[in-house]
Amino acid sequence: MHNTHTVPTAAILGAAGYTGQETLDRLLAHPELVPVALGSDSLAGQTAASLHPRLNGSLPAFVQNAEAAVSGADVIFLCLDHAASAAFSPPDGAVVVDLSGAHRLRDEDEATRWYGVAPGAWSYGLPEISPPEGRLIANPGCYATAALLALAPIRDVIDGAVIDAKSGMTGAGRSLKGSSHAGFVLENFSPYAVGAHRHAPEIAQQLGFPVTFVPHLLPVRRGLLATCYVHTDADARELLESAYAASPVVRVLPEGVTPELARVQGTDAAEIGIFTDASTGTTIVVCALDNLGKGAAGQAVQNANLALGLDETDGLVLTGVLV
Amino acid sequence: MHNTHTVPTAAILGAAGYTGQETLDRLLAHPELVPVALGSDSLAGQTAASLHPRLNGSLPAFVQNAEAAVSGADVIFLCLDHAASAAFSPPDGAVVVDLSGAHRLRDEDEATRWYGVAPGAWSYGLPEISPPEGRLIANPGCYATAALLALAPIRDVIDGAVIDAKSGMTGAGRSLKGSSHAGFVLENFSPYAVGAHRHAPEIAQQLGFPVTFVPHLLPVRRGLLATCYVHTDADARELLESAYAASPVVRVLPEGVTPELARVQGTDAAEIGIFTDASTGTTIVVCALDNLGKGAAGQAVQNANLALGLDETDGLVLTGVLV
Amino acid sequence: MHNTHTVPTAAILGAAGYTGQETLDRLLAHPELVPVALGSDSLAGQTAASLHPRLNGSLPAFVQNAEAAVSGADVIFLCLDHAASAAFSPPDGAVVVDLSGAHRLRDEDEATRWYGVAPGAWSYGLPEISPPEGRLIANPGCYATAALLALAPIRDVIDGAVIDAKSGMTGAGRSLKGSSHAGFVLENFSPYAVGAHRHAPEIAQQLGFPVTFVPHLLPVRRGLLATCYVHTDADARELLESAYAASPVVRVLPEGVTPELARVQGTDAAEIGIFTDASTGTTIVVCALDNLGKGAAGQAVQNANLALGLDETDGLVLTGVLV
Amino acid sequence: MHNTHTVPTAAILGAAGYTGQETLDRLLAHPELVPVALGSDSLAGQTAASLHPRLNGSLPAFVQNAEAAVSGADVIFLCLDHAASAAFSPPDGAVVVDLSGAHRLRDEDEATRWYGVAPGAWSYGLPEISPPEGRLIANPGCYATAALLALAPIRDVIDGAVIDAKSGMTGAGRSLKGSSHAGFVLENFSPYAVGAHRHAPEIAQQLGFPVTFVPHLLPVRRGLLATCYVHTDADARELLESAYAASPVVRVLPEGVTPELARVQGTDAAEIGIFTDASTGTTIVVCALDNLGKGAAGQAVQNANLALGLDETDGLVLTGVLV
Repeated sequence: MHNTHTVPTAAILGAAGYTGQETLDRLLAHPELVPVALGSDSLAGQTAASLHPRLNGSLPAFVQNAEAAVSGADVIFLCLDHAASAAFSPPDGAVVVDLSGAHRLRDEDEATRWYGVAPGAWSYGLPEISPPEGRLIANPGCYATAALLALAPIRDVIDGAVIDAKSGMTGAGRSLKGSSHAGFVLENFSPYAVGAHRHAPEIAQQLGFPVTFVPHLLPVRRGLLATCYVHTDADARELLESAYAASPVVRVLPEGVTPELARVQGTDAAEIGIFTDASTGTTIVVCALDNLGKGAAGQAVQNANLALGLDETDGLVLTGVLV
Repeated sequence: MHNTHTVPTAAILGAAGYTGQETLDRLLAHPELVPVALGSDSLAGQTAASLHPRLNGSLPAFVQNAEAAVSGADVIFLCLDHAASAAFSPPDGAVVVDLSGAHRLRDEDEATRWYGVAPGAWSYGLPEISPPEGRLIANPGCYATAALLALAPIRDVIDGAVIDAKSGMTGAGRSLKGSSHAGFVLENFSPYAVGAHRHAPEIAQQLGFPVTFVPHLLPVRRGLLATCYVHTDADARELLESAYAASPVVRVLPEGVTPELARVQGTDAAEIGIFTDASTGTTIVVCALDNLGKGAAGQAVQNANLALGLDETDGLVLTGVLV
Repeated sequence: MHNTHTVPTAAILGAAGYTGQETLDRLLAHPELVPVALGSDSLAGQTAASLHPRLNGSLPAFVQNAEAAVSGADVIFLCLDHAASAAFSPPDGAVVVDLSGAHRLRDEDEATRWYGVAPGAWSYGLPEISPPEGRLIANPGCYATAALLALAPIRDVIDGAVIDAKSGMTGAGRSLKGSSHAGFVLENFSPYAVGAHRHAPEIAQQLGFPVTFVPHLLPVRRGLLATCYVHTDADARELLESAYAASPVVRVLPEGVTPELARVQGTDAAEIGIFTDASTGTTIVVCALDNLGKGAAGQAVQNANLALGLDETDGLVLTGVLV
Repeated sequence: MHNTHTVPTAAILGAAGYTGQETLDRLLAHPELVPVALGSDSLAGQTAASLHPRLNGSLPAFVQNAEAAVSGADVIFLCLDHAASAAFSPPDGAVVVDLSGAHRLRDEDEATRWYGVAPGAWSYGLPEISPPEGRLIANPGCYATAALLALAPIRDVIDGAVIDAKSGMTGAGRSLKGSSHAGFVLENFSPYAVGAHRHAPEIAQQLGFPVTFVPHLLPVRRGLLATCYVHTDADARELLESAYAASPVVRVLPEGVTPELARVQGTDAAEIGIFTDASTGTTIVVCALDNLGKGAAGQAVQNANLALGLDETDGLVLTGVLV
């Protein structure tokens, strides 16, 4: 009885955070999916326009997340922190896309270590690599998405990888912390969680072998680029071009063209460049995407579209801004 | 007869470029070395204040580089492009520090390929690793400096390295080109010269084995960070701490502390952090420095100090700005 | 005979510059207007994808601007420099929107002084203030658009204004010059053309009195904010709210809410905030817009829509990115 | 009995904040003044190196602010918030420089309204305009310093001013708040406290008439620029050049040269440019400085030097970085 509308409906829990807002943005451009409940414990009772002046009266006002959860929407986007997502009880029949990490890891030790939860039966939904199955979908992490788009199509011809990743600061969310203070971020650059980040086991789980992973914080608002180093005798370009030949989302760039943050910022597309090191023969696969787009909200909507049987790219931003 | 002063004197050729200006800045704070000639073909005839309002009348006016070259200075800093440096004839007796790449490579094929010059007999002056010898000194590249500070002390216990480097845009110099246009740099990030950059053979020459090297362009004015991945059974931290225990320039950070651009920007210091990847055991050595400081002008002055028998840190900026 | 298509068609001259690309972006999202000719003297002969990997085969290849000019398109967007626009001969029957300043000034002395041209009979097309008339349309300058959106609705109750404006660096175009070099722009901020900028007479022409105008260069890619100071006894808020009550493009913000670049970047919308100085009673009107959106390409497409009788907002970006 | 050292000593209260760190930086370069106590309630008990790896063992460890206050230092720098500074009891005999706003305003209503304190008898120490008197010194606000350097020398020939000011984000301090979050600051720009900022009465107090003042937040780490608009028949350039002819800190730029943040960042210098609007004759005076340098810590040390009878520029950074 959750669906009492003639068009599919959506609820967003945590709608005032970065991923919640971005998910809302895509729903506003979506031809089929209608946002019917905006959950935010901090903004409950306020109009949508309190979040952004352009969100006018046609949108529902914010409600408590608990209220949004029982709105009867066909799809629920969980834009919450890990603990809140882990504690969420999916209503019968609804598609639920969890943008947190709570349901990504299947290994009990890893799930407990990184997210403090027992691993569940949610489907890991990375459409180009492992399309979502069923109605409970764990949306991949932003770093994991970039690394897996670069490496999953060649996982059978490599047995390890160094993944040096760099992300804009929105990847760390909207809550206040020292590492998000502009005095730390501006004109700065540094690695963090070196060799010990929770996206490493997520990447390893999907590839089938452990990886060396170091994330860095870029002084930009949005965008993520992963430079991946692997050894292989296979033709990585051929495998990657073949994997994404029909994709409306992932672009393999011509030889010699390098991915750039600026070309994917604000979009749900990803760019992949493939190179060979002249001195060592190491294969270098670079993937660029927007941490809030293909790395979060865009992929969440893409997963929801697939689960609901809609056009995969409905609501996605695939053209982008040229400058 | 070049030295007619009672204190050592210096000439800067190419004084209006980034490295030339930075070298001048250090000379202005230098207790022993006096700038007596500022060469700039574009500013010849103008006062020093034409470059910056604070450079007042006590400085000589700009002259043609050819004129600065015969000023009789005790030390000449070549802040020129590769071709101009390659064509430069050192005057008898003067110490010459070349900040370009013209005299760095000793292999004939590599020197010809990357700089179009025959390799000469200049000393590769990286004070902490290979102190300069004689009076003709090739100042290392900025990327090479960071990679070598991270890896040279452990070169005997590794046999390869992946070097993922990121530099602020001043590393590309002051001349106008598309990749230096603010519309390309701002809020952007991308790799370039992937697996085929001229600093790779320079690093390999000093380490004794080839390396995989990918530079990236950061949207910051200054600063460079290299994340280096190696396999070793040795205690890298012990070797690095031992190598730099007495250095006034290179700081090995305590366990768990990550290097940051912000702490080295505007300085001639370098920071090194050492980590082990939890999943793979890969050793990760990170070096941060200022591409215009330790990566160029600071190191040039440090080399000149050593060649002239002055205090190694005279004129260097080693405290930095805290914010 | 220019129109041989069943849907209206468009040509862009100067399609590889910032405003040309942004105009193309809007045409790609436009439900009615089809780009049939992309002119670029530098890219002629290359595919659209050479400009951006996402521009695939359905777009025509670049041709010389002279060839694009005679493509028979219903509307021609001139994204050229002032001199090239001034020299352009509009084909019979076509709507021409000139994004340069060549046809904005009606005073002979001013037009000659700033653009070296005789004033013509082009309509100054600022839809909310002076809707375009006829088929030859001068698209307003970015600074002028912001200042006029802030001041035109109150021009009858003021007799002067101080306009302190700040713009992202794309306002200066894609050509290489010292002031566009990232080494100058990053972490910097400065005024330029102080009290002597060509947009001052353009603003004055539309307001009916001279204004004090100082532009500044912001270290951001896009976005422009003008802070305008005026003296009036009238209720400026009432006049501005009334002027834009029905506008789909210009939002007057509630009391106490300040315009922000981040909310209008990448969009064709504008935000206006109105304040009173507590000490002096001075009225302060602040307008924020995207210099490439409402300040250039978005307004050009809006003007074309009006001239062609299409929906005013077709192709415009009015939702924007929330982050 | 406070002074038991043969050289003058200094204590910093709030040494871990931006202004505290910057003050410490200047003391480290100071030839006469020795830091003997570093107060920080959050870092008490930790070594100086916990704040920055370069601060080595020769510095005292952090202590509670209350303990630093009774260290017997000759000069105490209060780098605290307004309330803590207001509650501070100066020890007998010590020079105290308060970098907060607690003691700046002399009008009871204004002091109460903005800082919640009764006005006291502290000297307003802006060395070039109103040199400090006595041992209790209120260090001016960053915006006020820029506005007053631009306007105080011409206050007798004007009767009002519009001050449009823009500051880097360190001006807002190191504490976490929404407006300091990098997601708000990066690629953004906006006015705040429009027409109602506490520096307005401070400026008015020193000029003798009310001013219209609007601050804006720049997406840069440090630096502040104020563009001031006034009407006068006098020769503003002559008055300003005369006022600063002998100043080692304030540079009046030649005609046509505009102040730039980049030239004053990291320094304690200020730049002033003077212009006339071509259309209206309005006089435009622009002042650029570093909000943490001349706008805070540099000026505090300059005030302390004057109060202690030391060389005014001891410890100040007056050369700066050229890039």
